[in-house]
Amino acid sequence: MGAAPEQAVTSGGAVAIPTGAVIPPGADAVVMIEYTAEVMPGTIEVVRPVAPGEGVVRADEDARGGDEIAVGGRPLRPQDLGMLAAAGVTSVTVHKKPVVTIFSTGDEVVPADTPELKPGQVRDATAAALAALVSDAGGEPVFGGIVPDDPGALEAALRAALPASDVLVISAGSSVGTRDETANAVARLGRPGIWCHGLAIKPGKPTLLAECGGVPVIGLPGNPRSALVVFRLIGAPVIRLVGGCTVPPPEPSTRARLSRDLASATGRLDVVQVKVGDGLAVPVFGLSALLSVLTAADGYIVIPDEATGLDAGSEVNVILYA
Amino acid sequence: MGAAPEQAVTSGGAVAIPTGAVIPPGADAVVMIEYTAEVMPGTIEVVRPVAPGEGVVRADEDARGGDEIAVGGRPLRPQDLGMLAAAGVTSVTVHKKPVVTIFSTGDEVVPADTPELKPGQVRDATAAALAALVSDAGGEPVFGGIVPDDPGALEAALRAALPASDVLVISAGSSVGTRDETANAVARLGRPGIWCHGLAIKPGKPTLLAECGGVPVIGLPGNPRSALVVFRLIGAPVIRLVGGCTVPPPEPSTRARLSRDLASATGRLDVVQVKVGDGLAVPVFGLSALLSVLTAADGYIVIPDEATGLDAGSEVNVILYA
Repeated sequence: MGAAPEQAVTSGGAVAIPTGAVIPPGADAVVMIEYTAEVMPGTIEVVRPVAPGEGVVRADEDARGGDEIAVGGRPLRPQDLGMLAAAGVTSVTVHKKPVVTIFSTGDEVVPADTPELKPGQVRDATAAALAALVSDAGGEPVFGGIVPDDPGALEAALRAALPASDVLVISAGSSVGTRDETANAVARLGRPGIWCHGLAIKPGKPTLLAECGGVPVIGLPGNPRSALVVFRLIGAPVIRLVGGCTVPPPEPSTRARLSRDLASATGRLDVVQVKVGDGLAVPVFGLSALLSVLTAADGYIVIPDEATGLDAGSEVNVILYA
Repeated sequence: MGAAPEQAVTSGGAVAIPTGAVIPPGADAVVMIEYTAEVMPGTIEVVRPVAPGEGVVRADEDARGGDEIAVGGRPLRPQDLGMLAAAGVTSVTVHKKPVVTIFSTGDEVVPADTPELKPGQVRDATAAALAALVSDAGGEPVFGGIVPDDPGALEAALRAALPASDVLVISAGSSVGTRDETANAVARLGRPGIWCHGLAIKPGKPTLLAECGGVPVIGLPGNPRSALVVFRLIGAPVIRLVGGCTVPPPEPSTRARLSRDLASATGRLDVVQVKVGDGLAVPVFGLSALLSVLTAADGYIVIPDEATGLDAGSEVNVILYA
């Protein structure tokens, strides 16, 4: 029921008191004026039952002194901002947004705004998508540019970006050949160096994870779809953690029945894009290079590493693209 | 498999060709160089089976001329940006963010940064939370200020904000008394005027929905929790629609079992905040005025208007606060 803007005290004369007003001494409840009738001047009838404490919010009912009114390690939600404002807190110390420098590599990669491609060229599709994923994870994306297939150039670019970056992301530099060159450049950057090179995940196997003086370095596969799949699974959580987010926000998901059998090898995670409709999850297939698999999909399912596949009709959890 | 950075053509001499390169005439597949061995100068053995078309992405495989590569009415997802970039599209026409002017009303309401409250005063907790909900819905929140309980002042404030606003939101002006004053002020603003005044939803019953010359006007209940609950359910979708978003992004949710019986009246929606853990949804109760109910909750369940309540143990869909 709460306090209404025009109210009458339960005993004594009808007194209109504004919302939030202090209850006059002697009164222990508040009723809405529409539940009263003035039976004679100065005397009202209360036409609905009223209990002590009704229509009253105690000063300590929303929060007591010493209560935690916003949780650390979690992005502030609208209601948290409301609670802080109610307590008079209009400025809070928050974690800095991690600066995430994204490099694209490859002699064949040209900027996205290149109008006409020469034979053998591809536009840089991954950097724009990675920047959006970085923003979604609470990071501040910075584009470091397209670096040619030259280990010295990559090392120099990474070294120049390191002091101003909280995370380094290298796109298209982890396939065999350039993979080794990227790994060498990253290894020379600083300690502790490479954590792992290769993940039991498909797509996304040739992923490089490293750390140089406290700055995580993520080397992504060259195929755009592989890069985006692995970045969503591995890169975004890294950025959230670097940004102080230890309680990740919930992801939209839905349960659905698989439309067909899906094969999978044990010992590796399989990420399969699906379209969802009428409770059915329909896999979208295509090469690792194809972004259309991701744009056509509503979300993806993860086949756990111990599974040898999933049967048609089995219930799956679909993580939805938001 | 896709195209690797160093490759050999399946027939003829071992030729290292870069990623994205055009296949030399006569070749119809590409194998990775690590699956070849040079058996004599100028001749290689391919040590894995290879089929025509392998390692090759056709020029029209990701998108053909005339294909829709980004869907209208839906926020651009990271992969959509990637697809656009791949096609050389670095600038697209998008809907303008709706400008949403938020007014707080009430003589008792003081700015959130007021250090000490006088008896009867409350800090404006709702405006900050509403602004965050507006941003989440793709709007541009503008704070119109705190308007005293004076119909003339409210009408003047609304009228002044109308030309520069795409949506007007009035917080704390829809309870009986001020409710009527707000309704009168809104009704005088312009045509078609008030759509409805009162919704079959709890909390949030005294909600006012109106339109003045194409600008939606949302009058919210005075209690902060009611205002935020109803704004999430009714206001955010209005802002998305005004912003051109006809395909709303999926909301995070989870299935859980209800920890206890929940009563509910037929003929109205009941929104109940819950904490979720170990597959159990535990209702959080409290007055409509209490923001702590919202800050303590992980999400909420909606009891449909035809239900008379829910039994303990029944499976419920919990919409999670993101």
